[in-house]
Formats: sequence, structure tokens, C-alpha cells
Amino acid sequence: MTDTQAMMEQIGQRARVAARTLAASDGKARNRALECMAERLWLDREAIQAANALDLAAAEANGLSPAMVDRLRLSESGIRAMADGIREVMALPDPVGEITEMKPRPNGMMVGRMRVPLGVIGIIYESRPNVTAAALCVKSGNAVILRGGSEAIHSNRAIAERLALGLSAAGLPAEAVQFIDTTDRAAVGALLKSDRYVDIIIPRGGKGLIRRVMEESVIPVIKHLDGICHTYVDRHADLEMAAELTFNGKMQRTGVCNATETLLVHQAVAEAFLPGICRRLHAAGCELRGCDRTRALAGEAAPVMAATPEDYDTEHLAAILSIRVVASLDEALAHIDAHSSRHTETIVTRDHPRAMRFLREVDSSAVMINASTRFNDGFQFGLGAEMGISTDKLHVRGPVGLEGLTCLKYIVFGDGQLRQ
Amino acid sequence: MTDTQAMMEQIGQRARVAARTLAASDGKARNRALECMAERLWLDREAIQAANALDLAAAEANGLSPAMVDRLRLSESGIRAMADGIREVMALPDPVGEITEMKPRPNGMMVGRMRVPLGVIGIIYESRPNVTAAALCVKSGNAVILRGGSEAIHSNRAIAERLALGLSAAGLPAEAVQFIDTTDRAAVGALLKSDRYVDIIIPRGGKGLIRRVMEESVIPVIKHLDGICHTYVDRHADLEMAAELTFNGKMQRTGVCNATETLLVHQAVAEAFLPGICRRLHAAGCELRGCDRTRALAGEAAPVMAATPEDYDTEHLAAILSIRVVASLDEALAHIDAHSSRHTETIVTRDHPRAMRFLREVDSSAVMINASTRFNDGFQFGLGAEMGISTDKLHVRGPVGLEGLTCLKYIVFGDGQLRQ
Repeated sequence: MTDTQAMMEQIGQRARVAARTLAASDGKARNRALECMAERLWLDREAIQAANALDLAAAEANGLSPAMVDRLRLSESGIRAMADGIREVMALPDPVGEITEMKPRPNGMMVGRMRVPLGVIGIIYESRPNVTAAALCVKSGNAVILRGGSEAIHSNRAIAERLALGLSAAGLPAEAVQFIDTTDRAAVGALLKSDRYVDIIIPRGGKGLIRRVMEESVIPVIKHLDGICHTYVDRHADLEMAAELTFNGKMQRTGVCNATETLLVHQAVAEAFLPGICRRLHAAGCELRGCDRTRALAGEAAPVMAATPEDYDTEHLAAILSIRVVASLDEALAHIDAHSSRHTETIVTRDHPRAMRFLREVDSSAVMINASTRFNDGFQFGLGAEMGISTDKLHVRGPVGLEGLTCLKYIVFGDGQLRQ
Repeated sequence: MTDTQAMMEQIGQRARVAARTLAASDGKARNRALECMAERLWLDREAIQAANALDLAAAEANGLSPAMVDRLRLSESGIRAMADGIREVMALPDPVGEITEMKPRPNGMMVGRMRVPLGVIGIIYESRPNVTAAALCVKSGNAVILRGGSEAIHSNRAIAERLALGLSAAGLPAEAVQFIDTTDRAAVGALLKSDRYVDIIIPRGGKGLIRRVMEESVIPVIKHLDGICHTYVDRHADLEMAAELTFNGKMQRTGVCNATETLLVHQAVAEAFLPGICRRLHAAGCELRGCDRTRALAGEAAPVMAATPEDYDTEHLAAILSIRVVASLDEALAHIDAHSSRHTETIVTRDHPRAMRFLREVDSSAVMINASTRFNDGFQFGLGAEMGISTDKLHVRGPVGLEGLTCLKYIVFGDGQLRQ
């Protein structure tokens, strides 16, 4: 066993023990720990910024771009935002212990389910671990093992230490939040094989990281891949509403996973709809890439480049929109099935049967009728904070909030029932 | 690409297309398909038995034990049981399309969830695929890819052909039930990498198979490992009830995953409880393996062998019971935490706070108060048929019925809401 493996083994064992205590703790104690964490981060903001300065100096010495150095920087307001984020999680209802569906069986036994923590959650970040994510784990009674990027190691260590101090100040085990304190890449490999200790892995980062985790992990993974989201303007759409929803879906914020990347327009309304929306998007600085019919219809209104097949499979994450005219709802559904990343899709229509068909048949984490794709988000859906949007189908689809960090076990209340 | 990989690619593509049709089909059509499958199996029972005869002849030629040959044999009543199993699944309520939790958001948008099929399910068996499992997949709107053991290949092919015929007879795509028609072991490897087509893998077999699947699969897995189940007799137990529950848990059927494998007894009642239950179990032919105190207390009542540490980590699957006297509820919980396979645990007690603590703190797929561990089962819990009992924590714990083969996507009803 290498040193790194031995370290991971020790982290895993401690997390498992801490998880048992946390699962048995009451919600008040966990809230007290969250309050202590928030307080500790804020009180120690200067020490955290001093640690951050070491990362910034190393980043500059290593020639990181000014933009990357800037992203690494922890300002006082950044630390305040972390503390506020923890307090928002604190204010959410306690998900642990809820009992549902208790129903009597013919033999008099009651069978139902209880919501309980998953146990130990491993989160792998490419840069700085999200403090809200750690808070969500603690709130839901889980222990968490954090792994961050090596360029932020001093900041990560300083933050993780404060979270652990918050736990002990509230009488909970400090090991419920642990940080993998090494830049050795082998630590990730060892974590992904720690199925004796870790119940679930959540990778947060680019496709390379996520593919590596999928390939190597023997532990179940909740992942977030691309958001190639579609807005489909049906033949029965209210075209004014369609224009607002398209513009909002694409332009309200462009670098995010729930932004609209492809606009599909039913041919019956293409002529009435496309010139106006193309003009508006172009005027707002959006680059347009469309099929031949889109280009012909947009005409002089706005320049539309010829879309390549790759455009329809691309998460632009920028002010770029792929556009295609479709002959029918069927063709829209087939396009979405072939090109969507199963994140968010919306239909704009006044026709109820067509809206319901879209709702049933589109297989994405969120499917919408007459609403902006930008709404697929934990806060917007009323879950409170989230730690990402799952594009997986198992366990949790869409925003991963407290419920996604718990599971349901069966419970039975008997009075001596025997199996016949 | 090898021939086997090319075959798996083709199977996967067809399954994906079929899954889309199945997900959009209505429950009546899927029920009609199930009826046609049941009918077809029964009408073609002679052809299926003729195919089975080829497997039996090969098994004898290959020197398989008479017990294994016997297990391979498909009798007429066995085929009738398959057809009956399909009809039982048919009678269950349709899980697909259910809408729950629709709630208004402050902006007027309604957000809720819809239950939808997972998509394509791959099931890997060590011997003969379970027809009920395939029926559960179709009922819940999923396509399924079946892989069975090579010693049953002729029988498997004959059965799978009838299931596919049943689908087409009902106007649904025959490719919604596919059978991997090769004995090449590489086909399993190719299946486990087919994440473009397959949404979930369910391995059904021994530890070797399950470990291989965990290691190789890039697709999420729902698995069933051991059942090392505990019955804990508390100091406040009704000792007559405790004796009945212990005897039922261990002896009602011994070769099954929800049988009790370890009995834990609080020291305060050990003297009153152990001699009687040991005598009764011994008289019924159960081998007893206990700690020193158990052996001393059982005394002449019944022979108790000294338990080795391994006994407490063993799924006996036979008339063998490990026994241990514990000093407290805490010690019982710690023993269960260290040795349970997280399948099923029960406490026998009249004390409400202790019962509730056991319920909260034991982290198993089913946790019971005053009921036999043998009840952890889809039929007994009221789910109808099941395809196994998941000891995983993600997505589904305990019996995997129709709900376990579906997932919840978010749905939004808007009237033009824009993100601010």
C-alpha cells in the first residue's frame, strides 16, 4: 500500500465513523455545527486570505493566466458569501428522519419508508470545493470527503480546517468534513476504489474529470455532464411569448448549463417568427448558426452562419445559438432525442395535447411548457441550495439538493408477525 | 471493433429506439404485449422444451452435476409459472406518467415531477434470465437486454424469441426485449461499456459476477449483494415473541437472502432466552455457533460450537445460526454496523424509545420492529413482483419493483415566465 492509499484508507475509516455519529445526531446539533462553521470562516477570514495569498503567488509564479489567478482569489466578500451560503442551508427544513407511506399490510404489519443520509459522500472538484456543497452534506447527516485542485491547496486546507472546527465546536466529529491534503493525483484513484467507506462520488468539473471518474469508480456516481438545452417553438405558439422565452433562455446568462443552445422552430411559424428573433438576438450580440431555411428566412434581418452538424451537438456556453426549422412536432422530438444532453427542454405552444406529448416524451432532467430553460435550478424549483444539476437518471435527476443526498430505507412496525 | 462489439452496438442502438417507442406507448398496449408474451410462451411450450433438451444434453455431456442439470430443466409447470408470473406483473398498476408534487412557485410557474421509464436496462444472469424481470421492465416502459449463462443458451434463445413475438403481436417493437445470443464472455464487457445505449445494469448472480460488473461498468449498477441479517432480542423483549421471530427468521426458509444469519441477545435476558431457543433450533436441525456466554448459557440444552470471527461475517444460507450476547443496545448497534450487509435487521422489544433508536440508526435496506426478517420482499411489502432486493443506497433500497425501474423528471407548467 502506498502512502497515498494508506492516507485514503485512514480518511475513509474516519469518515465512516463520523457518518454514523452524524446520522444519529439531531437536526439541531447539525444546525449548530453549520452556524459555527459560518462564524469560524468569517472570524478567520484574514488567516484564510493569507493562505489564499500563497496559492496566488504560486499561480503567478507558474504563469497562470490573469483570469485564472483572479478566479483563485478569495476576497473578503467571497468569504462572506461562503458564510451566508452555509446559513441559507441551515435555514432549510431537516430532511432526515421523515417517515412516509406507512401502510398496513393484510397481516397487520405497517410498512413504509424513512429518509436517511447516504453515509459518506466524496466530492471531487477541479478547483475550489464549494462550501455550500459541504454544508448540504452536513445538513443531510452525511460525512463528506473533499478533493480540490492542486492550485488551490492552501486555500482549500484553510477552509476545510475551519469547517472541521465548526463541527467540533458544536460537539460533532470534526472528521465529518475531511479534505484530501495532497496534490498527488493517485489520491483520486484511491478514493474511487474506496467502496468500503464511501457511498457516493460527485465529480464537479469538465468532461475529462467526469469520464475518468466514470471509468475508474467502483462507487456509484452522481454526475453533471453538458447542458445542450432546446427551446422548441411549436406551430401553435404565442409568438410574442416564444420570442421572450427564446431570448431569455439564450441571453439572460450565457455561460451556464441551463441556457438554451438550440432553437427549433416549426415550419408553419418559421416565417413569422424567425426574422424578428434573429434581428433581436443579433442586435444583442448573439452569433446565429442556422439551417438553410433559417438563413433564407432571416435574410437581411440578421446574418446567420451555416450551422455544421457539430453545432447541434455543442454546448456553446456563449452568446451563440444553433437554429433549425423542423417540419413537425415529431421532427422536433427526434432532433431532441438525437442531440439533447437530457438536461432541460421547453416547448412554447398553446395546444394542450401537443404540450402534454412533449412533456411525456422528452427524456430530460426537466421538461417545461412555456417557461425559460433557465429555470432548471434548485433555488428556482424551490429546493433551496443545490450542489449541481444531475443529468443522470438513477437516484436523482435535475437539481441535487438535500433530498438527493439522502435515500429511503424500508421500515416495518410489527407486533410479532411471522412469515407463513 | 470485434464482431462481438459490433453485435452489442447493434443491440444497443435497437434497444434505444425501442425504448423511445415503449416510453411513449400507453399502459394498455404494454399490458396487451405482456398478455401476448404469456400466451406465446404457453402455446410454444413444446418448442421451448425441445430447445431446453439441447441444453440438458450438452450439460450431461459436459459432466454437470445431476443437481445442476435438474436446475436447468424446464418442465411444463415451470413454463406455466413463467406465464403466470407475467400475468401477475400485468395486473399491477401502471407506474408510468404519474405526476406528483406539482406546486406553484412565487412567479406563478408550477413545478413538480413525472415518473418515467429509465430507458434501457441490461440484466446479466449467471443462468436463466428471469421472465418476471423482463415483464417488469416492459410494464414500466423500459427496453431490456438480457444476458444469460452459456449452459442455458438454447432455452434462453427460445424464451426470448417468444417474448419478442409477444411484443410484436401487440404492435410494440420486438427489440424492446433482446437476448445477447452468444456465449462469448467479451459480450458482457462490451455491454458494460455501452453507456451510449444502456441506462442501468442489474447483475443477478454470485459475488464474482457482481464484483466484475462493479469494476468494469461505466453504467450505473443496481446490485444485490449478501444478506447477513440480524435479529436483536432486546432486554425489554417479549421473550415468547422473540423466540417465534428468531425461529421464523432463521428456519422458515434457510437458503434466502432475508433469513436471519446472526442472533444478538441482550445480556439481561440471555439466561431466560437462550436455553429455550437453542433447544428448539437444535431440535429442528439448526447448527448453532455462539460466543462463550452463549455456549455457557445453552449448556446441556443444546450443543453450541464456538463461533469464529468469520461466522459473524458469513451469509450461511443454511440451517446455521451465529449467536452473540451483547452488553447493551449500543453494542448491538455497533455489531450490526460492523457485520451487517445492510440488507435486513429487526429488533424485538416492547420499549418505544429503544425501538425508534434502532429504526433510525440501523442503516439497512429494511429495518424492522417486532417482525421477522423474512418479510423483506416485494410481495410482502405490497410492491407486487420484484426483481431482487437492492443492498445499494442510491436510487432504490430493498425490493426492486416497478418503481425502482423508473425515475422522476422535473416538469414545469408555465405561461411565459422569464428568469430575472
